[in-house]
Parts: sequence; structure tokens; C-alpha cells
Amino acid sequence: MTEARPTDLRPTGLRPTGLRPTDLRTVLDGRWAAVRDEVRAEMGGLKLDPDPDASTEEYRAQIAEAVRMLADSGRPHRGFDPAYGGGGDVGGVVTSFAMLGYGDLSLLVKAGVQWGLFGGALQALGTARHHDRYLRDTMDGTLLGCFAMTETGHGSDVQHLRTTATYDPATQEFEIHTPEPGARKDYIGGAARDARMAAVFAQLVTDGTGHGVHAFLVPIRDEDGAALPGVTISDCGVKAGLNGVDNGRLVFDRVRVPREALLNRFGDVAPDGTYSSSIDNETRRFFTMLGTLVRGRISVAGGAGSAAEKALALAVRYGNTRRQFANPATGEEVVVLDYLVHQRKLLPLLATTYALHVAQNDLVERMHELQGAGAEADEAGQRELETRAAGIKAIGTWHATRTIQTCREACGGAGYLAENLLPALKADTDVFTTFEGDNTVLLQLVAKTILSDYGKGVARLDLLGKARFAAGIVADAVVERTGVRPLIERGDVRDTAVQRRLIAAREQHLLASAAQRMRKALAPGADQFAIFNGAQDHLLAAARAYVDRVVFDAFAAVADRDPLLGRLLALHGLSTIEADRAWFVEHGYLTAARTKAVTGAVNALCGELRPHARELVDAFGIPENWLDCPLLDGERGTAEPRTEAPAELSAVG
Amino acid sequence: MTEARPTDLRPTGLRPTGLRPTDLRTVLDGRWAAVRDEVRAEMGGLKLDPDPDASTEEYRAQIAEAVRMLADSGRPHRGFDPAYGGGGDVGGVVTSFAMLGYGDLSLLVKAGVQWGLFGGALQALGTARHHDRYLRDTMDGTLLGCFAMTETGHGSDVQHLRTTATYDPATQEFEIHTPEPGARKDYIGGAARDARMAAVFAQLVTDGTGHGVHAFLVPIRDEDGAALPGVTISDCGVKAGLNGVDNGRLVFDRVRVPREALLNRFGDVAPDGTYSSSIDNETRRFFTMLGTLVRGRISVAGGAGSAAEKALALAVRYGNTRRQFANPATGEEVVVLDYLVHQRKLLPLLATTYALHVAQNDLVERMHELQGAGAEADEAGQRELETRAAGIKAIGTWHATRTIQTCREACGGAGYLAENLLPALKADTDVFTTFEGDNTVLLQLVAKTILSDYGKGVARLDLLGKARFAAGIVADAVVERTGVRPLIERGDVRDTAVQRRLIAAREQHLLASAAQRMRKALAPGADQFAIFNGAQDHLLAAARAYVDRVVFDAFAAVADRDPLLGRLLALHGLSTIEADRAWFVEHGYLTAARTKAVTGAVNALCGELRPHARELVDAFGIPENWLDCPLLDGERGTAEPRTEAPAELSAVG
Repeated sequence: MTEARPTDLRPTGLRPTGLRPTDLRTVLDGRWAAVRDEVRAEMGGLKLDPDPDASTEEYRAQIAEAVRMLADSGRPHRGFDPAYGGGGDVGGVVTSFAMLGYGDLSLLVKAGVQWGLFGGALQALGTARHHDRYLRDTMDGTLLGCFAMTETGHGSDVQHLRTTATYDPATQEFEIHTPEPGARKDYIGGAARDARMAAVFAQLVTDGTGHGVHAFLVPIRDEDGAALPGVTISDCGVKAGLNGVDNGRLVFDRVRVPREALLNRFGDVAPDGTYSSSIDNETRRFFTMLGTLVRGRISVAGGAGSAAEKALALAVRYGNTRRQFANPATGEEVVVLDYLVHQRKLLPLLATTYALHVAQNDLVERMHELQGAGAEADEAGQRELETRAAGIKAIGTWHATRTIQTCREACGGAGYLAENLLPALKADTDVFTTFEGDNTVLLQLVAKTILSDYGKGVARLDLLGKARFAAGIVADAVVERTGVRPLIERGDVRDTAVQRRLIAAREQHLLASAAQRMRKALAPGADQFAIFNGAQDHLLAAARAYVDRVVFDAFAAVADRDPLLGRLLALHGLSTIEADRAWFVEHGYLTAARTKAVTGAVNALCGELRPHARELVDAFGIPENWLDCPLLDGERGTAEPRTEAPAELSAVG
Repeated sequence: MTEARPTDLRPTGLRPTGLRPTDLRTVLDGRWAAVRDEVRAEMGGLKLDPDPDASTEEYRAQIAEAVRMLADSGRPHRGFDPAYGGGGDVGGVVTSFAMLGYGDLSLLVKAGVQWGLFGGALQALGTARHHDRYLRDTMDGTLLGCFAMTETGHGSDVQHLRTTATYDPATQEFEIHTPEPGARKDYIGGAARDARMAAVFAQLVTDGTGHGVHAFLVPIRDEDGAALPGVTISDCGVKAGLNGVDNGRLVFDRVRVPREALLNRFGDVAPDGTYSSSIDNETRRFFTMLGTLVRGRISVAGGAGSAAEKALALAVRYGNTRRQFANPATGEEVVVLDYLVHQRKLLPLLATTYALHVAQNDLVERMHELQGAGAEADEAGQRELETRAAGIKAIGTWHATRTIQTCREACGGAGYLAENLLPALKADTDVFTTFEGDNTVLLQLVAKTILSDYGKGVARLDLLGKARFAAGIVADAVVERTGVRPLIERGDVRDTAVQRRLIAAREQHLLASAAQRMRKALAPGADQFAIFNGAQDHLLAAARAYVDRVVFDAFAAVADRDPLLGRLLALHGLSTIEADRAWFVEHGYLTAARTKAVTGAVNALCGELRPHARELVDAFGIPENWLDCPLLDGERGTAEPRTEAPAELSAVG
């Protein structure tokens, strides 16, 4: 972890002599530190980056082979039911899964489809009859599955997808059917090449009545890989990235599956066609089913975080040795990370990446507690988990896209070469912002939930309850008080408590004022669509403010363990506030003079953290082998590029 | 141009009956409308998008062939000296070049290397001896060249590159040499496969004295494509995008070229080794040489603009037919562009894209007037052109990256498929932000120039001149007055004059306050590096503010020609102000209440422009053939995807 620093800017006193610093990695690794170390030891030696000039077919074959190896390692088993040979360690498996983001994102997604989505649906939506028959083969990878939810015409509005599963009591079968071209299953990972079975989400119809979306196990290929009768499979072709994953399309022409193909944990059909469910309300049932699949969303957030960390490790280490332009006083060329603008580009992103890493650890723990073996049903906890997962997935994947883009640019032309790994990170993670829930749609979901919880909270606090809330009295009062002078924050903006107050006040204020706008929608004859639509940007801001508070709190809970973490928290908090500083001034929480102090403090913190930049990215513990690329050749102490054989030169024909 | 609109939201009265609207395209096409129409007619029929699964070698061969076709068309000739069979139409050729951004960006860059960079250096830095010998072959594409400026160790700091060209009077030759690995020429388009000759930038040394960077014509390959003795060529390999361009690396081992290989317009070496130049100051000479190459930077800005326009055409047309989620009142699914957040994502970007398009037209006209045949030397005009070009290139390419990213996300999973063209747009243009000048470095250049001009301006206005300026009296006064009440803007924020005042005031304020900070650097013993570095973010903000004002003014000059353009200008102006609204409040130009009005006006304008969205993207006049992709299938009136043959299914081995 030690290194020769190009310029010794390390402030003395940040870690007082005699005080043994907490190992940053211990904090980042969190509860599943042992699992992380295992992955580092077992997989860090593999050279994962594929030949960038491989054909799509070759790349797919490589990734299929890597999935095979992963299955053989026994690691994926650990997330499943111990009764079937699984390890029951949900948190551990999600943690190790996310670490694949340091390696190859196609492998991450392909594994995610097999064990997270297909395996997850089987485990969470199925019952013993499915587990007995398919769970071991799924864990072992001898049964390769795919997750056929998204349709061409219904990507975000899954509740209204159009594929039908119509029960026929005469044969005790379901007929899976694609009634129109927009109901084609689309972008399905694993469908184009490898999957033998699909978890198909379809509208369950029995005796002419629809009961909403349910999942069915539908074989799609025979053992030789040929499509089964009635199943038309096509290929989505080349994508912007993730080309090791075989995304495809499925069209069903009255494909018959037995009654038992229904994954019947939350709804079942008797042989005579009678439908039954433990959850009467169709919408609630639908969201309960989706909720069990939250693991996928959490895993995507984790994978995005790993990719952002890898990009930062590359860009910070490059910036730590790359020199450009001379200092006029000394004539010596300046290391680019010594430039304020370069620090400004990378270090606030690094601070927020730390915050998201810790918030992700917290999320995984919550999921583990709620969904792990032996956990009792906790409806409120599950609801909060889903809300946090949606929010952190949205904010985290956007953060990853922005971070990787910034890192690419910070490495100039070198960052554009495939050999330097950044192009694949960028291309592969790009879709994370719109899959496993489109980020904008997810934040609307978050807004809806926190708004509804807020309404309930207000009702609980106030005896007059909902009536008063609807009349806007409470909301008005909350909003009004935000305008008054005494609330202007006058403390030191570097102080954690001050930052916390600002971040929490913004959440409360946006929520209260959104609630006030929304109550208009309760009026009889109100144009609900127009009211919601007109407030969409407000609702999204409220959701972001909620996530910002959740992430800040998670990081703050560990940041007192090391002075460096404290400064990262301050930089994260201040750059969060700085990004929305106009709002704080507009709503009377900060004076214009204070927001200028925020910007000054961000610059100062960049300078203070700069000497530790290398240490901070090393703490992620990314296997060195997965970072090895010509971009880092400058670290060898000279500017010398690696020796290269003269290239084979192609003559022009 | 007419279309069936999904919901008739078109406000009446925006274009009063009886008033024939200006054709939007006429405004966008500008002075070289005829050239644009020619390109549309001649090239629009070609299917330019390459097979996304082609190997790098195949793609390179396709693009080389397309360059051949382009040469045969005679179009590139039009930018060159009429004395050699060129057309002398600099503006026309840059305009038609930028339109390749609607088609294939690899072709754009490869053509740019041949005729813009290599041909441009030959024309602008060479003299009759070079023109006589090479200009026709370069125009015809029978001599393929590359532009060897960038080095591994010196990307941005070109003035200090390390390749040497040492004159030997005994043989009357220059010895071109790579003295260390960091002096390797890197990322050179055309070097890996096709170029026969390089314009090599090297430190000219004669009789032991360096005279700064000059360009030399150095043959690098023989007729069969083999590297010449002493020249080591290697391949940069696969890149994030632009894989139809063969970027490579060049290392020279004491390669000898005749004295006449020096492109000697601005500096020459006599047979005996005596150096002479019309420009005594080495730095000024260097920047004069670079200045003649401004065409490349302007062309990059144009290409980025075209790519952004294409992305917007795709995303707006998709958003205009794609439906998702039902309106609870009607049960009908809502067209996604009817959602406020979707409008918010796309329409401000569309407005700024219009503004940049018009500013680019203006830039090309200025360049044409200054550099066209028969133009007289105009040093001040050239300086302003270079400053505007640097600024518009930086802001325009960042805008393109952001716009294309947003458009990709606005198209969800469909936007991630190569068949829908957005992935290539994104990957190919990504490097535009860091090549032909890294954007951050370019903005620093802009800041330096406007700051120096500001200093001169102040000196001219004030008889006490520089002394007083250095003492900060004038600057202080300018800054001080910005804090006083009467300057708060109270007009209607939708008013063009109000927006102009705000945008111009920010530029002036940032400039004045930056000048004030910088004068500290003039004090004896001042740590210039620390002062400049500490103010870097301030300087970049000043440069951005300058570019914002230039772009706003260019668009404002044409926006009164059509009510739709007027609203686009307002949306552009307001979203520019909104993005930096914290600054306006912090510095007393807007009250918090007024900035809220800005946000409200942006939302309102989105709603007003939404019904015209299709018309606005059609006005770019992008050949329909270059937009054709499955993403737009929804426009056929049904949600039906194009008929697809069942895909060939690969069995797993």
C-alpha cells in the first residue's frame, strides 16, 4: 500500500503519530470482508478482460465458459436455500457478485441472469415442486435459464405487459401466447444462445378472468439448443456493450406448459381452474412478487459501484504520475492531479463513491436480514428495503455513468483505447441506468412511496388525521416555516451536523411541498394526470433528496473511524450540497455568502485529500491483475511505455 | 414534413394565420445551404452504417474505400487553393464535412485527417515547393497522409513535444528522431494502416540551437505499405469507437529527410543552416502556426453538432410515438414525450443544439472570410476566431456527449442496441472532448485570451492604464458594483433582453473578478503557479460564460425570423441561466424568487415546444436513410416491430 509520491504534499497531523489508523479497506469491506478476500484470492489471478477484437460469437462463448467455471466453483450456490445444498448466505453472494464488476461486466450480467434473475425467481416465486425439480440444476448451471419479463411495448410498465397464460382445465395446461408484436419478450439476457428455460411473466387468465402478472417456467430450447415448437427466438445482435451476453427476443405461439409450470408461491390455479391467492388485491400481489426480486436491483447497484471504483483507480493512479505543462517557477512539469481542476473532476466523485459503497453495504445487510434463511416476514422493513434499493440503484448507476465518463476524459486519448480498460467499463455499464428499472421510473416509485409514508406519518401525528392533511394545513405549516429567517444555517459548513441538517431539511421540505401539491389531485374531478405530470420534476427532486440523506447517513455512521474517512464524508456532503446550492438559497436555508463558503470548502478538501488519493483508491482492494494495463506504465518510475514489438503492418490491397 | 400528432397540443396563434413561417431549415442551413442540399442529394442515398459485428480490419477497409469514393467525388478539392485545382470554398467544405456526422463518424475523422489535418498542414504551413509537388495528389487521395503531432508524453503541451529535427548542413538534411519513449507519436489517425507520409511536428534544431516546433513532411511507408527504414509503426488497436480509423504510433530512429521537407511558411533553414523567420518570438511563431490549423477544431465542433442532432432526431421521434403507462382518467397509454420529465430531458438540449448549430454557422463564416482565397491578414480577427473556435469546440463537444447520452437513456433498452444507431454515435464522438485540444485545456486558453483582452480593454479605457489596472482599482470597481441592489434583474425572464443582460453580466463579472485575482500573480516573488492553480475553476467559469454569451448572441441574431425560433432561444437562454442559477443569486443578479420563475418558465416552454418537437428535428434535414432503424418502426402507426425472420440459432457446442 505504500508508494513513492511525486510531490510530498501529505499534511502532517491528519493521522496523529501514535494513533494506528483504521484500515480503510476494513471499513469498505464491511460484514462480508472474508467473502471479498476469497474472491480476490480465487479470481484475482484470472485475466478477465477479453480480446476487444473478438467477434460477438467468440466473446459469448468465452463468457459462457466463465459462467461454467463460476458454477463449478460453488460460489453461486451460497445464495440459495440450504435445504437444496445452498449456503443461505444472501448477503455474501450479492457481495461477491458485485465484485465481478472489477473484472468483466458481461460475466457479471450473465451470472446475474442465471442465478440472480432466473434462479431468484425460481427460489422466491416458486414452491417445493419447483425447487425439488430445478433448484440444484440451476445452482450447478446444468439448467441454464433466462428471465423473460420485459416486452417490446412494455419495458417500464411491467404490470401491463401483454403476454398471456390462459388456463385450459381440459388438459390442465397453460397456453403461453404472444398476442401482438408489442408483447414480444425483448432484450432477454441468455435468450439468444444459451438458455434452455425461461421464467416467463404473463397475464394469468382462467375462465375468462385475468388475475394479473404471474411467472411461468417455460422450456424454450431442446438439449441441442434448437428452439422448441411454438417458440420463435431471435437475436438482439450487437449492443453498445455487454456483448458477452446473448440478449434475445422470444415470441410464443400458443405454447402449452403443464399447470405446475406456474410459480405459485403467491397465486395458484386449481386443476379445475379456480384461482387462489394469499393476497387479494391484484396490484398488491404484483408488487409483492416483484419485491421478492429486489436482489437483482441491489446487485446492479453493487456492480455499478465496482465499475466506478475501477475507473477511479485507473484515473487517479494515472493522474498521480502523468505530467503535463511546466510550473513556470521551477520549470518542472506538473503532475496532473496537482491541478485544482483535475482534483475537482475526480475527488468529489471519489468521495461519493465511498459514500455509495458504504450505503450499498448497508443495503445488502438489510436485505440479508430480511430475506436470509429464517428471517421473519417484515412488511415495513421490506417496503423500506425496496425503496432504498430503487433509490440507490438509480443514483448509484447514474453516478457510475458520470464517474466512468469523467475518468475516461481525465485520461485523455489513452482513456479511449480498449487496452486501457475504460472503454469497456463505460460501454458495459451504460445500460445499468435503464435496466432493472429505468432510473427515472424508479425515482418516481421512490417519490410515491415516501410521499405516501409521509402522508401516513402526518396522519399519525395529528389527531385530525387525513382530513386535515388533505386540507393542506399541516403541509402548509411545514412549508411555511422553511421560509423564516431562524432556519438559515449558520454553522461551519465543514461540520457533519451542519451538512446533515441541510441534507435532511431539503428532504423534508421537498416532501412537504410535494404533498401539498399532490393533495390537489384528491379534489373531485381533478385532472390527476396533469397534476402529477406538472409536479414530476418536483417529485424526482424529492426522491433524490431522500436518497442523498440515506447515503449520507450510511457513510456518516462509519466515517468517525478514520480522519481520512471524515474528510471524505465532508467532501461528499459538501459536494452534494454544492450541486443543489441554488435550491438551498432559493428556499432560505443558506445565504448566498454561505454557498460561496461551500464551494471554497470543496476546493480546500480536494487539496487536503489529494496526497491520499492513491491510498484511497487502493483501499477498494481491486485485484491488481484486473487493473493491469498500459495506462499505468508511468508508475514504473519513468514515463517509458511498455516495450512493444514493431507491429505487424498491413499493406493496403 | 407534416405528420399525424398523437395528441393535438399545438397551440393556436404561435404562427398567426396568413404569416408564412420561415422555413426553419433555411435558417439552420445558413450560407452554405446549397452545399448542404448537394450532400443530402449525393450522399443521402448511401447506406453508411457499418456492420457492427465487422472486424476492425474489415471496418477500416470499408472506411478506406469510402474515403476513396469521397476523393473521387471531388468534394474535398473544394477547400483547397484554386491555383492547384481546388475550389477555394473553405466554408463550404467545412460545412459538408460536418454533415458526415449524420452518417459515419469514422469516415468523418478519416477524411478530416487526410484533407483537414494533413492537407491543411501542407496548404497552410507549406509553400509553393510543397504545393507544387503534393497538393494535387493529396486532394485526389493518391497521396495518403497523417498528422503526427501528439506524443505519448505530450498530448496537450504540444509546444514542448520532444521529437527532434536536427539540421545537418553537410548533407542538407534533417534528421527526424524520437529521443525517448515519451516522444513517440501516438494516436495518429491513418498511421496504423494507410498513410504513406506524415506531417511530423518536431523541435527544429540547427547548429545546436532550438527554434521551436515546426512541421516536416516525412515519408513513412513505401508503395507496398511497408514501413520505411528507421520508422517503427505500431497500432493503437481497438478503441472505444471510431474503429474505422487506423490510429497508430510512430517512432523515428534518425530518419533523414531533405532540407525541403520543412514546411517553411513561417520559418526556414538556409542550406548553411541559418534559421530565419518572419516571426521573431518563438512562442508567437508556434501559436501562429497552430492558428492556421484552426479549421480542424472548427470541423470537430461541426461533426459533434451533427451527431447530437442525429441523436435528438432519433430520441424525439421515438418519444413521439412510444407509449408507456396509462393516464388513469382515460385509460389510454401516454406518449412518453407528453411527460414533463421526458420533455425536460430532451427539449432544452434541443434548444441548445439549435443555438450551437447557428453559432457554428457563424464561426464557419468568420473562418471563411479570414482564411478564404484573397482574404487579407487580420490578426485581431484571427485571434478572435481561434478563441471562439476553442470555446465552441469545448462547449459543443461536451454538449454532444451529454446529449447523445441523454438520448440513449431516453430510448431505454432500444437505445442500447447497435441496430438503433445511438451506440455508435456515443462511442465515436466520445473522444471529441479530448482530441483536437482537450476541452479543459482549451477553456483555459480561452480564459487566458479573454483575460488578456480584458486587461488591454481596461487599459485603453483608462488613461492611467496598466498601472492602475495592476493596482486593481478598475477591477475592484467593476466587481464592487455587481454587489449593489440596483443591478438585480427585475424584468420578465422570458424576455430576450433580460436573458442577454444576465448572460453578459455573468461574463463581465467573472472576467473582472478573475482579473483581480490574477493581478496578484504580477507581484514580485508571487507563486504564479499557486495563484493560477487556485483560480482554475474561476477561470474555467469565465471561459464558459464567454462562450455562453457568444452562442446566445449568434442564435439571437436569427431567432426573430420565426416564432418557434424565438421560443427555442428563450428555452436555450433560460436553461443556460437555470444551470448556473446559484451563481446569479450568489452574486446579486437574481433574487431567489426570480430563479424559481426561471425554472417555471423552462417547464412552460417545454410544454409549448413539445407539439413542434418533430418539426424541429426534421428541420436539421438529416437524410432519412441515415436515420432508418428499428427504433423508428413505431412511426408506422402501429407499435408493430419490423418483420423479422426467425434468427439463426446457434446451438451450444
